[in-house]
Amino acid sequence: MRVGVLTGGGDCPGLNAVIRGVVRKGVQEYGYNFVGFRDGWRGPLEGDSFQLDIPQVRGILPRGGTILGSSRTNPLKVENGIRRIRENLTKQEVDALIAIGGEDTLGVAAALADEYGINVIGVPKTIDNDLSATDYTFGFDTAVGIATEAIDRLHTTAESHMRVLVVEVMGRHAGWIALHSGLAGGANVILIPEQRFDVEQVCTWVTSRFRASYAPIVVIAEGAMPKDGDMVLKDGSLDSFGHVRLSGIGEWLAKEIERRTGNEARTTVLGHVQRGGTPSAFDRWLATRFGLHAIEAVRDGDFGKMVALRGTDIVRVPIAEATAKLKTVDPSLYEEVSVFFG
Amino acid sequence: MRVGVLTGGGDCPGLNAVIRGVVRKGVQEYGYNFVGFRDGWRGPLEGDSFQLDIPQVRGILPRGGTILGSSRTNPLKVENGIRRIRENLTKQEVDALIAIGGEDTLGVAAALADEYGINVIGVPKTIDNDLSATDYTFGFDTAVGIATEAIDRLHTTAESHMRVLVVEVMGRHAGWIALHSGLAGGANVILIPEQRFDVEQVCTWVTSRFRASYAPIVVIAEGAMPKDGDMVLKDGSLDSFGHVRLSGIGEWLAKEIERRTGNEARTTVLGHVQRGGTPSAFDRWLATRFGLHAIEAVRDGDFGKMVALRGTDIVRVPIAEATAKLKTVDPSLYEEVSVFFG
Amino acid sequence: MRVGVLTGGGDCPGLNAVIRGVVRKGVQEYGYNFVGFRDGWRGPLEGDSFQLDIPQVRGILPRGGTILGSSRTNPLKVENGIRRIRENLTKQEVDALIAIGGEDTLGVAAALADEYGINVIGVPKTIDNDLSATDYTFGFDTAVGIATEAIDRLHTTAESHMRVLVVEVMGRHAGWIALHSGLAGGANVILIPEQRFDVEQVCTWVTSRFRASYAPIVVIAEGAMPKDGDMVLKDGSLDSFGHVRLSGIGEWLAKEIERRTGNEARTTVLGHVQRGGTPSAFDRWLATRFGLHAIEAVRDGDFGKMVALRGTDIVRVPIAEATAKLKTVDPSLYEEVSVFFG
Amino acid sequence: MRVGVLTGGGDCPGLNAVIRGVVRKGVQEYGYNFVGFRDGWRGPLEGDSFQLDIPQVRGILPRGGTILGSSRTNPLKVENGIRRIRENLTKQEVDALIAIGGEDTLGVAAALADEYGINVIGVPKTIDNDLSATDYTFGFDTAVGIATEAIDRLHTTAESHMRVLVVEVMGRHAGWIALHSGLAGGANVILIPEQRFDVEQVCTWVTSRFRASYAPIVVIAEGAMPKDGDMVLKDGSLDSFGHVRLSGIGEWLAKEIERRTGNEARTTVLGHVQRGGTPSAFDRWLATRFGLHAIEAVRDGDFGKMVALRGTDIVRVPIAEATAKLKTVDPSLYEEVSVFFG
Repeated sequence: MRVGVLTGGGDCPGLNAVIRGVVRKGVQEYGYNFVGFRDGWRGPLEGDSFQLDIPQVRGILPRGGTILGSSRTNPLKVENGIRRIRENLTKQEVDALIAIGGEDTLGVAAALADEYGINVIGVPKTIDNDLSATDYTFGFDTAVGIATEAIDRLHTTAESHMRVLVVEVMGRHAGWIALHSGLAGGANVILIPEQRFDVEQVCTWVTSRFRASYAPIVVIAEGAMPKDGDMVLKDGSLDSFGHVRLSGIGEWLAKEIERRTGNEARTTVLGHVQRGGTPSAFDRWLATRFGLHAIEAVRDGDFGKMVALRGTDIVRVPIAEATAKLKTVDPSLYEEVSVFFG
Repeated sequence: MRVGVLTGGGDCPGLNAVIRGVVRKGVQEYGYNFVGFRDGWRGPLEGDSFQLDIPQVRGILPRGGTILGSSRTNPLKVENGIRRIRENLTKQEVDALIAIGGEDTLGVAAALADEYGINVIGVPKTIDNDLSATDYTFGFDTAVGIATEAIDRLHTTAESHMRVLVVEVMGRHAGWIALHSGLAGGANVILIPEQRFDVEQVCTWVTSRFRASYAPIVVIAEGAMPKDGDMVLKDGSLDSFGHVRLSGIGEWLAKEIERRTGNEARTTVLGHVQRGGTPSAFDRWLATRFGLHAIEAVRDGDFGKMVALRGTDIVRVPIAEATAKLKTVDPSLYEEVSVFFG
Repeated sequence: MRVGVLTGGGDCPGLNAVIRGVVRKGVQEYGYNFVGFRDGWRGPLEGDSFQLDIPQVRGILPRGGTILGSSRTNPLKVENGIRRIRENLTKQEVDALIAIGGEDTLGVAAALADEYGINVIGVPKTIDNDLSATDYTFGFDTAVGIATEAIDRLHTTAESHMRVLVVEVMGRHAGWIALHSGLAGGANVILIPEQRFDVEQVCTWVTSRFRASYAPIVVIAEGAMPKDGDMVLKDGSLDSFGHVRLSGIGEWLAKEIERRTGNEARTTVLGHVQRGGTPSAFDRWLATRFGLHAIEAVRDGDFGKMVALRGTDIVRVPIAEATAKLKTVDPSLYEEVSVFFG
Repeated sequence: MRVGVLTGGGDCPGLNAVIRGVVRKGVQEYGYNFVGFRDGWRGPLEGDSFQLDIPQVRGILPRGGTILGSSRTNPLKVENGIRRIRENLTKQEVDALIAIGGEDTLGVAAALADEYGINVIGVPKTIDNDLSATDYTFGFDTAVGIATEAIDRLHTTAESHMRVLVVEVMGRHAGWIALHSGLAGGANVILIPEQRFDVEQVCTWVTSRFRASYAPIVVIAEGAMPKDGDMVLKDGSLDSFGHVRLSGIGEWLAKEIERRTGNEARTTVLGHVQRGGTPSAFDRWLATRFGLHAIEAVRDGDFGKMVALRGTDIVRVPIAEATAKLKTVDPSLYEEVSVFFG
């Protein structure tokens, strides 16, 4: 048995732990051979691969990034992409493929499995935790931990100078990182993409917080938007620099808070710091178990499936089902957390 | 409505987060009054309490320990203990009691609820993660994180000096901390109380690890025992100093490994470092939600219940049921992890 | 003897450690009384103070911020400011004043000491490490540690996606944080305010780094400027939003690198995260010793002096001398570090 | 020019940073070739070496341990040891040797330089900070940081359970780690090898601390000894297991405190955790600069010297002088810190 492995999409702490789990168990318990494809789908597309064995996965458990490299190459958008992948898999005598990635990577995996009968097993990966069918994805806990530590640090500055501090965290479509780190960091306002926010309400919370003689911390997901979204777009600050990158929603909100409440406001954009570095113990545990169960699914010939966390169990679900719908923050959970606002 | 709160047993990062969640939601949403009882069951037993309000719970989210103090006082073992508690609760006009604690504390809570009809809600707390009915208890993730970081650091020493490093972690009856931190830290042997270990097998793993030109790290729970347990007891080193405290099983094992393999072995006993300090983001999230749901259960009059984590949901289960059985590591999970041994 | 204490300027990890050192030694060894003035010079200006004793300084050693509060109030710019301070010190029977702060706070202290004969002792504080006469100021080591950890984390993202990562750190007039964290974090380019940079040279380093098949990390102090400084000002991005806050020099540089090299570039602005949170062990040691030596200077009646670090010794220097000149990065030190550029 | 590099003695965070600094500057600025000798003096003794170049030192800056390996091999104690080293250096055409190590390693380096005219440059390395002629050695700051973090965590346990916590840290002959981490961690008693301690005095401090309604933390260096040292030796607990390893001075002291005061006492022995893992930013800065200056000394032909830190400058001192005398804690510094005892 010869098994291919690839990692696609943005980097995420825990990718190497998955690879190590797959290879250790595959070689030791099942006697499989392994091929590592470079840079996500670009690897099988161009036949760019190398022999993977136990020595190569030694010591990689605590390392961020991926020893396989990654890319956003989408073979569905490349001419004859799928055919070329099939040919390269055949040429390299690859019997099964483990694809580790997010919505896009797994979307391709689902297509390969369902439409072309290729033996694929998916491993879910998204730092944003917004993939259906799994309780958590690895990388998320690490990102929340980093954001929480940053918020912890900002409290002393908020207090000493009676300033509003706006912290922009990752999350374009789902507010999981904002919600978890905002709660864990003791933020006074948390704004997420799932619920358009009312700037006046935010200012009311900010003002009431100052009255309790404490400076407010506002955590906002990069994808959060005010109720009257147009006013952001009309505002030259975002428009002329490109939407998120140059001055994101955090900057915009800080400026609005200053303008409306008269309080000084400062922004911190955590950015890529959230997705780098060593994975947390939780993520190493989860990612390693995903790896062990993925290779077990290969052994069982249970293809077209993705491993997923349910409670403390690792289960298998159809890949297509898992990627069908974004997992967003439920209004009732946001409501639960909102007791700490203001 | 007047609600009492107490924390019992060993300290555990996240206790303050529970208290804060209970009080914030209870005061703001339900308009309740709160009474904090000091030092676990000693508080209601002796009527030692103080007014709890929002100002007292400000800023305590990231702090380890408990602002209520703790003790191992067991009113079931005190003459007229239960009667005195009932009287003090009546005297202080306490309508409901939230008891945050482990097996012992919750055992008393169950007795108070079942046998004496007192309005009790339980919140599970054990750093060892060995309480049935909940996927995880808060404090556990923090402990695993601390142990993992220590193991990470030991790798460089193991490598540079080609020594065996034995790390003794918490866990008298259950090996959860050893299993999670051992896996996350890339340990080469993990020994837990649930499975008596074979010293010869451990030495074989150690030796094979050296052959792969890398020094082995052995993670052992403080409650782990060799197959022939008598030989530990017969060995004066443990007997004469008290079993665990003075020289624990870690020291014993290191000495045995040295004697049998001829390799140098060193021991690190992490001890109380594992249960102190600021809770991880995961534990703050879990503990806070436990607090919010506990006060909701009070509002619903759903007494005799304990809050518990199932997947990503907080549910309620009968307290008595939750404490009936220790949650230990399943042999199949230990087997799953053992692929990394040797 | 009655001693006043105040903290002025921006917050800085270690302020509480100084206060604790002053009070513990002053009370225990010399039997002094202490008065804490609130919010920097605003305290003595308005007579806003409170009794400081050992119980108030318990547990504050590891806490960021300052229990005395801070402000940028400058009594030299307030009508009759100095006279009012003298009157309030007399009214409260304060015999000596310990002023903990940066250039501005110590400038006032120097004026009070030199021109008005008030018994002042200065303690240097600046996160930027740019105060003459002392080898290091507390807070700096903490800031460098936080920035270094962030840079460590960015390496995996830089690698996995072959992007340029620009990290903007604190330092308006001096590049100490950029230099130390850039070196410690293994940055490929470090840009500081002391030396105008050549954008083309930066792009050459970036490009050469990619050729070594590794993605570059550029660390830039917020006060760094390109050689042709006008081009930044001409560029609307900075001009229309205020210089540093909305889109700082980091954003500007990232955009320039993208435009000139065609490589994707991302910016992380660490912001206030660098000055918050618990002080490092180094800063706790330094700040505590500053406190102990400041109260010793009071006892010796050696007023008008500032405590300072020289090697491993704490010495006393005239306050005026210490604040006369900004301590900037020496060209030869920058040259020494530049071996790692490109 | 061909330069050899070796690392000897116990591992220490920062070794790799020195090697990287030496090689980067040596290759880029001076065009030198490099030979890495394996496992300290064993390398040149047995001619075990490999080519060192820039690619090998990439990415090693944040890694603990040493890519060269280490040992305690002492060629002065090996027959014809020095002659064999000279021959191997000649055979491999090594013109100069950079020896990174502590007292023992540098002692050999001094002998090679002084007695045999070999071109040696020393770089001081000891986690204990006990080497004369340099303000600090790298690795020390990392160790102090780790110990301080552990002490921080123990405070919550000490408080919650009103127990004495004894923390044993590294330091056989000098108490630097105990002194710095004890002060930074807010310990209530610090015991160092330089001053024999009086158990009764320790118990008095412990008791007075409890009266201030706070539980005491005692930090003790592994080499600290009570005034009546015999009583330790007479006590079977230490004697029968070997002095330090099995149950060290920390355990002994905890037992004495329990016996004499009746308070519960627990011990944490940090052990090898203190010397592993990634170096702090301070240590990376110091170690890197040591590396840069060591190769500069080679270029200057200034052999027989050791690089050293004086204030913020790196200077050169004769190796022999530097190792002549252990740098211990001055009684006046210990006195200064003792204001926090009790």
